[in-house]
Parts: sequence; C-alpha cells; structure tokens
Amino acid sequence: MLTPEHMQQTVDRYLAAINAGDMQAVMALYADDASVEDPVGTEPKRGDEILEFYTNAFAGGARVELTGPVRLSARAAAFPFRAEINRPEGQILIVEVIDIFEFDPAGKVARMMAHFGPSNMTVRNA
Amino acid sequence: MLTPEHMQQTVDRYLAAINAGDMQAVMALYADDASVEDPVGTEPKRGDEILEFYTNAFAGGARVELTGPVRLSARAAAFPFRAEINRPEGQILIVEVIDIFEFDPAGKVARMMAHFGPSNMTVRNA
Repeated sequence: MLTPEHMQQTVDRYLAAINAGDMQAVMALYADDASVEDPVGTEPKRGDEILEFYTNAFAGGARVELTGPVRLSARAAAFPFRAEINRPEGQILIVEVIDIFEFDPAGKVARMMAHFGPSNMTVRNA
Repeated sequence: MLTPEHMQQTVDRYLAAINAGDMQAVMALYADDASVEDPVGTEPKRGDEILEFYTNAFAGGARVELTGPVRLSARAAAFPFRAEINRPEGQILIVEVIDIFEFDPAGKVARMMAHFGPSNMTVRNA
C-alpha cells in the first residue's frame, strides 16, 4: 500500500543506505523497471546501470542528510538534501540536491530524478 | 538563451510576483502552452485555467520565501519554499512546497509541478 508513511520511510531508508554504503539496500527500494535520471537532463539509467552508478558515485563514502521536510503528494516524494562525497583526491564535494521519487502502486520507486547542477556544488579540503 | 542565471531569475521573479499579488507577472513567466500540475497527482491546468488557479489560490494575499538554494540542472529549476497564505476565515495556511520548473528553449516555464501534501500543511491564527 502506498501511504505517506511508506514514502517517508523509503526516503529515510534511502539516505540511511547511502550513509551506510549499502548499495544493495538502495537497490531494494527501486522497482525492477525503475529509471534514475541523475542529474536531470542526462540519459536515464536502468537495471544494472543503476547499481553501477551508485557504486561509482559513492565509492569513497558519503554523508547525506535532509535539509528540509520531505514533500509528499499522492504518489511522489520530493526532498532537499546535502551530500558530502569523499573524493579520491582527498577533497570533499558538497552538493545541494533535490530528489524526486515517483512510486509505483506496490510502493517501489519507479522513477528517480535528481535536481542539481554546477551552481549547487562546492569543494573543500577534508 | 536558457542559462542558469535566467532560470534563477525566473524563480526570483515568480516568488516576487506572488508576494506582490501580481498574477499577470506570474503568467508572463509561463509559455503559452504551459501546464501546471499543482499539487503533483492532480490534472494539469492549462491556458486560462492557470491564471484562474493563481488568482483563486492567492486571493487573500500570500507570502512566499525560499527555504534553501535553487537547484539548477540543464533545463530545470527545483526549489524549496514556504508559503503563508491568508485564508478567508482569518487563519494562515503554511505550506512547505518544492516546485519544479521545466523550461523551454526560449526560457519560458513549459511545465510546473508543485510537490506537497497534507503532511506539509499547518494552520495558525493570524
């Protein structure tokens, strides 16, 4: 059943899974035929490309946290968060993102879109 | 030309127009064939329905302000904001929203989606 509570929990589990570096837990939230458009405007990733994308994006570890309430409409969640991503060079990339999760009737994420661009990124030394 | 600066300015003008109660200035940001899905999950409004929608929604006046940075990708802006809307009963409805603006190549907003639901609304006395 697709409830606001379920959508909120999915967002919480998504962020916790990234913080734990558990990309299989991320994948468990997605429908089998899900698409991930990250960032918005790029070709959507599907299937094995999604796991590969998350694995590469967060290979060095990352910390993510909400920066405001999760907006819950009938079948979608939109949430603002900050990602601090460890880079191989020893720097930390900070990205301010808004993700959209569109849910299927079974409560899996069928479509994800990540809104951010160069103006939302800063780099600092670790 | 569709630049990040133009998209940021469009968001700033949109919020300023609502704060000024100037719904013609809101309409000027939209393409002629724009659609407005507010909230997400409802039938998109088009043409004269859009002006009618804004006129009714903000008939008693409203204050809107960003609650975080505007996320700017290739052809879209996503932004978190808080709306305080005066109600006829003398109460104020506070709504935490995330809007998505998808732009056409000419820099007009071709598609708007407003993410919020009952869990994002509170009411207080004026």
